[in-house]
Amino acid sequence: MILTVTLNTALDITYRVPALTPHASHRVTDVAERPGGKGLNVARVLAALGHDTVVTGFAGGPSGAVLRDLLAPLAPVDALVPVSGNTRRTVAVVDAATGDTTQLNEPGPTVTADEWAAFLSSYAELLGGAEAVALCGSLPPGIHVGAYAELIRRARTAGVPVLLDTSGEPLRRGIAARPGLVKPNADELAQLTGSRDPLRAAHDARRRGAHTVVASLGADGMLAATPEGLWQAAPPARVKGNPTGAGDSAVAGLLSGLVEQLPWPERLARAVALSAATVLAPAAGEFDVRTYEDLLPQVEVTAHATAA
Amino acid sequence: MILTVTLNTALDITYRVPALTPHASHRVTDVAERPGGKGLNVARVLAALGHDTVVTGFAGGPSGAVLRDLLAPLAPVDALVPVSGNTRRTVAVVDAATGDTTQLNEPGPTVTADEWAAFLSSYAELLGGAEAVALCGSLPPGIHVGAYAELIRRARTAGVPVLLDTSGEPLRRGIAARPGLVKPNADELAQLTGSRDPLRAAHDARRRGAHTVVASLGADGMLAATPEGLWQAAPPARVKGNPTGAGDSAVAGLLSGLVEQLPWPERLARAVALSAATVLAPAAGEFDVRTYEDLLPQVEVTAHATAA
Repeated sequence: MILTVTLNTALDITYRVPALTPHASHRVTDVAERPGGKGLNVARVLAALGHDTVVTGFAGGPSGAVLRDLLAPLAPVDALVPVSGNTRRTVAVVDAATGDTTQLNEPGPTVTADEWAAFLSSYAELLGGAEAVALCGSLPPGIHVGAYAELIRRARTAGVPVLLDTSGEPLRRGIAARPGLVKPNADELAQLTGSRDPLRAAHDARRRGAHTVVASLGADGMLAATPEGLWQAAPPARVKGNPTGAGDSAVAGLLSGLVEQLPWPERLARAVALSAATVLAPAAGEFDVRTYEDLLPQVEVTAHATAA
Repeated sequence: MILTVTLNTALDITYRVPALTPHASHRVTDVAERPGGKGLNVARVLAALGHDTVVTGFAGGPSGAVLRDLLAPLAPVDALVPVSGNTRRTVAVVDAATGDTTQLNEPGPTVTADEWAAFLSSYAELLGGAEAVALCGSLPPGIHVGAYAELIRRARTAGVPVLLDTSGEPLRRGIAARPGLVKPNADELAQLTGSRDPLRAAHDARRRGAHTVVASLGADGMLAATPEGLWQAAPPARVKGNPTGAGDSAVAGLLSGLVEQLPWPERLARAVALSAATVLAPAAGEFDVRTYEDLLPQVEVTAHATAA
């Protein structure tokens, strides 16, 4: 199975309003809830691709209970660790007139030292059955900034390949612990390395410790700097839609390609096609299987002459 | 005891954000939750004034469970009737820079015929021990528009005085069932009668069936059209602050004055002072007892020459 870790899971709430006007009162016409957080999204896409997936991280309080109830009928197996605090909610307010979204994200519960210890013990056990592990998203309050570095070291000791998808200091510290793969976007890569040239920045991130760097470049597709070479993959045309969850779908594409031992060009093509099929799907964070299958053969992958 | 009915209770959530920008993503810096809905607010103020209070209406789902947990340690007694749907949430997004609030209100759960029947049976029992009853706020989906009229008739049959605080068609139908007291604001009164002259509109509302009409006129105070005469009460000075809950505090003032059999000028003075003390309180819907006691002797009550 593939394990995904979401330390700061979320109950994603979507409100539809006729039009959002600051400082006014609004009747919400439609309310939708789904289990959220990057690793949960990744696991759902992996499951749709036919992989057994297990999700871990933390869930607690009334929002955590709702999240677990919503997760129960879905394919990913729930191995979330209980916390005493309330799982954060994210509220996406969709303006029905324009389709634009205003996002409100709660900070998340403070995780205690005992809860972190319980997680580490569960994580060690889960690694025993994992073909690969993805560490996804932000850290909740109370978790030390080197937490991902610690999880990476433990996975490497257990011989399980690690993909890290986070930003800021947790990404910097994580890379120093030498993960197999990091998937920053252009902004995260620039913040890490100080360079806005994706090629230069990806090389820099590899020098800092990442075995492989796959940078997501938005509408321009993805760039992979690997020990076997350098590739760039681009969608057939600029896709228009809701980019929510596109990065998570790309992570699922990369992880499934890793486990299936696909060559790099195929892994990248899958990640780019999944990402584009997510942008094109009507609901945020979903992807349409037929759109994905249509797009896959149209993704153009170029090998760069420069050795990585 | 005094009974308050809130058919569409709410879990009131307050989010503080540095500044609200439409179509952007926001980190919520502070999250607060409280049990809400007009009747619950009225009951809390009544309890602070020393009255035994019981709250009824509906609560259900995860949000209903949180609401009841938050209500449990407070003074009002919980006699809410369970529903299968999820109690609505209201989200108040407070802009820390300006103090302005953007409000998002969920519609509320659909109440089934069986749930309404269960409520009516509980209501009949509660009326047996009630000195007065307040019917407060909007109707949730599934409840027929004549619901308040039905509750008023049942209270009259039981000999329990009724205060009705709602708007639109439920107010119109409710008034026709001859409640003891209605407390519309200027807009609700204008919508009901077609007149923006509060005196003329209050007389009209009495002709439609309301025994007594107390109109809240915002910063201008309140106007009471009663069988015993006509009074107007005004706060000592224009008060500045958050008007959330001010109308509910006024209802509590009127109800407590009714039960204590105060003369009309004293009832009105209490309602106006409580309302102003709520506007001046730092947290929405709270009131400061010392501010209330300071304001009370300063409220100016004028008897109108015109007979009501």
